[in-house]
Order: sequence, then structure tokens, then C-alpha cells
Amino acid sequence: MENHSGRKIEVSYSPALFSSYFHDQDCIVVVIDVFRATSAMCAAFEHGVEGIIPVATLDEARAYQAKGYAVGAERDGQVVEGFQFGNSPFSFTEGKFAGQTIVLTTTNGTRAISVAKEAHQIVVGSFLNLNALVDWLVQQDRHVLLQCAGWKNRFNLEDTLFAGAVASALEQRFEEPAMADSAIAAKHLYHVAENDLNGFLANSSHRRRLKRLHLEKDINYCLTPNQSTAVPLFNGEMLVNVAEKVSVE
Amino acid sequence: MENHSGRKIEVSYSPALFSSYFHDQDCIVVVIDVFRATSAMCAAFEHGVEGIIPVATLDEARAYQAKGYAVGAERDGQVVEGFQFGNSPFSFTEGKFAGQTIVLTTTNGTRAISVAKEAHQIVVGSFLNLNALVDWLVQQDRHVLLQCAGWKNRFNLEDTLFAGAVASALEQRFEEPAMADSAIAAKHLYHVAENDLNGFLANSSHRRRLKRLHLEKDINYCLTPNQSTAVPLFNGEMLVNVAEKVSVE
Repeated sequence: MENHSGRKIEVSYSPALFSSYFHDQDCIVVVIDVFRATSAMCAAFEHGVEGIIPVATLDEARAYQAKGYAVGAERDGQVVEGFQFGNSPFSFTEGKFAGQTIVLTTTNGTRAISVAKEAHQIVVGSFLNLNALVDWLVQQDRHVLLQCAGWKNRFNLEDTLFAGAVASALEQRFEEPAMADSAIAAKHLYHVAENDLNGFLANSSHRRRLKRLHLEKDINYCLTPNQSTAVPLFNGEMLVNVAEKVSVE
Repeated sequence: MENHSGRKIEVSYSPALFSSYFHDQDCIVVVIDVFRATSAMCAAFEHGVEGIIPVATLDEARAYQAKGYAVGAERDGQVVEGFQFGNSPFSFTEGKFAGQTIVLTTTNGTRAISVAKEAHQIVVGSFLNLNALVDWLVQQDRHVLLQCAGWKNRFNLEDTLFAGAVASALEQRFEEPAMADSAIAAKHLYHVAENDLNGFLANSSHRRRLKRLHLEKDINYCLTPNQSTAVPLFNGEMLVNVAEKVSVE
């Protein structure tokens, strides 16, 4: 993006590419793991959770368990034995953890948060909080780096589609948007897919994986925009909701 | 791609992602640097060059120069001072190096070849040899990994569009294609752009960079399919043309 003024909008398709995009500590990093970590986080805040402590390893998760926290752990799409929940948004929709600070470790999503720790601010995005996130990003005077969690460092379609939805909205609303190639690509893919996200993803590798695990209900929920007004921000220790309280659009 | 039989078609968008995709030494890696290293290589073979020795550093390039080779070197889009040529395909179209083995180092393209060295076979692709490459890949009984050179480890549009053109053709022609998410995405982008590649790339970062360097003629040439029947294959030491000799389609 050299020699281009304006507010940068960039997409990093893999945690392994973060350092190739991150040159500016002033930027806001949006961590994206549509299936299902960041969707679950947005659902959790919408249903009253006060804070989420993301941890990278099962050992760290067990240490919090020993201290009495409610702890979730997911690996390869499934709840890890010995933990209360995984990364299904339905773990939270009944308000079971309202008012609590919980702990979560997932295959890809929590790693994406941990690689981004140098950034000015890290927030969490998913189709569930699309409009709330875009509104909040427009209010900040910062470059935006959309960091996809991917799948084991590989590109995935669902995170890219969401990054494209955000890039497309920000391009419309920033005064002088400076779109990186990766943001242009994500935007075009989103426009190909937006009228039937589920159909477009029918052959994606992750959706096939979740389908084998009988997670169709989760997939549909995670692809339904604007069910949450939360903007989960990582404050260095845990995620907290920084959105002004408004009702779901 | 786990639990999916058939011939894999995958795209790695950055040399930094090669190791995340490369799990199978039996696969063929196609190295892609549309602007302009792999386009120049295809043009070179089409115009009689016998072999191309790709080197990573300017020091290696100078060592070959001292031995009397014709040596090209490009950094940041420009010919490096003291070298005969850079990565413009027009260096070769007049047949100046016909019958010779030449040496080339470029910003991104030769690095992409060097990260892929563990693969069963490495070949070089560009719009110039699209049909010849696809025909040759169909004949091999191998998985295919399309490795984009990108720009300093970042995603770029032009390499992705070419990867999408190849992925789309192979999906039609392989008996049991197994498309990775990255191949599905590249295919869709290619279909958005294929009727006007130049227009689609108008706002891409690399095209803006080349335009500033007054390389419009090179851009148009590199985006015109099937001007070369070469299939340049890296034999461990240099690139040689393994295509059966036929006339341009």
C-alpha cells in the first residue's frame, strides 16, 4: 500500500501472514473465526457474559478451571473431555453464564488473538455482530487489519467472506479507503456469495468438517448477520464488550 | 482436505504459507509470478532460451556474471544496476538469448521457486503458458499446489487470478478434483475478472506500482493468455522446457 494515503483496509488470510501485514502499531486488528470461536464470543456477550479470557493451551485452561472459572475448550470442532463447553454459540444463548467472566481455548480463534497482541487494539468479528463492528470501526480513526483465523494456517472461505463483508462496508464509509489486494479479493468473493452464504460454502472444507460433526444448526446460526450488538475488545487480559448498549438492529 | 479422495488442487497465496500446504512430496508445485518473473520465463523459452538458472541473491547473480553468463536481476520492479536485463518478457521476445542458458534473480519469483524445492516437481506458470501448463498438469497423475509469489509475502491479485484460471480448468478436467478453499476462492475471483483482467486489476497494488514505472506494455503482455507453449520445469539446477514442441494454440 506504499504511496497511498487514506485509511488502510487489509485482510490477512492466515495467522502465519500477520507479521507480513502488521507494520503499524496504530492499526486495529479484527480477529475473525466464523466457525465458531468469534461467533460464540459475540453470542456470549449478547447473552450477558461479562468477560472472556482467551487462552492458547489446554493446560492454561485447566489452571483456570482449578480456580473455579467456567471454562470452554474446543479442538478439531469438538468439546475437549473434561470441559463444560466448546465453541458453539448455543452454549451461551440461554444466558447460562450471564454476569460471569469465562475462559475459552479453541483450535484457531484464540491463536489468532495471541498473534495480534502487538496491535493498538484487537476486536472480535463475526457475521453475528457485523453492523455493530462496522459502526464501531468507522468511529475510530485507524487503519484496519482483518485477521482471519483460517484453519491450521491455511486460507478458509468463511472467514474470508466475513472479512469481505466488513471491507465492502468500510470502503463505502471511510472517507479515503485504501484497499489492499487481499481486501479487494475478499470484497468480490463476498459479493459473489452474499445472497446465499450457506450455499456458497457447501463445498468448503470446514463446512464439510462441521457437517460430519452434525453441526448444521451452528453453521446456520453463525451465518446469520446481526444477532449481536457486541463489540468484544481485548483489553490485554480479557475480552470485554465496548459497544454502546443498543438494541439489535 | 482430509477425508477427501481425488486429486487435490490447492492454492498457497504466499511463500510464507508454503509449508502449511505442503504435506505431500508427490505433488507438483506451480510457481506463479505474473508481474513479471514467470511471464518472462515463459517468454524466454518461447523465444529459444535453452535454460534458466534461478538464483536468490545478487551475489550469486554476480558470480554467474563473472563466469560469462547472461544475467538478469530485478528488485522492486527495476533492473538492478550492472545487469543486462530484469524481468520484462520483452527482454526475450526478439530472440537475443536463443540457444543460451541464462541466469535470473527477481524480488518475489525466484524466492517462490526456492521455498518449493522439496516438491516432486516444480513448474512455472503465467497467463502466457496457461493452456500448455494445464494440458501438461492433466497428463501427470499428481496433486497440484499453485504457489503464488505474492508481494513480499502478501497476497496479490494477479497471481491469484492466474491460479484461479488453472484451478478452474483442472476442476473441469481432473476425474476427481478435490478443491481446497483457496482454490475455490481463486476460481470465483477469476470468473469475476476473466472478461477484463486489466480492468479488474486497475486498482491492484502491484499494477499501480508498475504503472508508476511506466510498464503498461509489460502489463498488457503478461495478461494475454497463450503466447507460449513452454512448460518450464525446475530440474534441481535450472529451468528447462518439458513441453512437447507444438505450435501456439
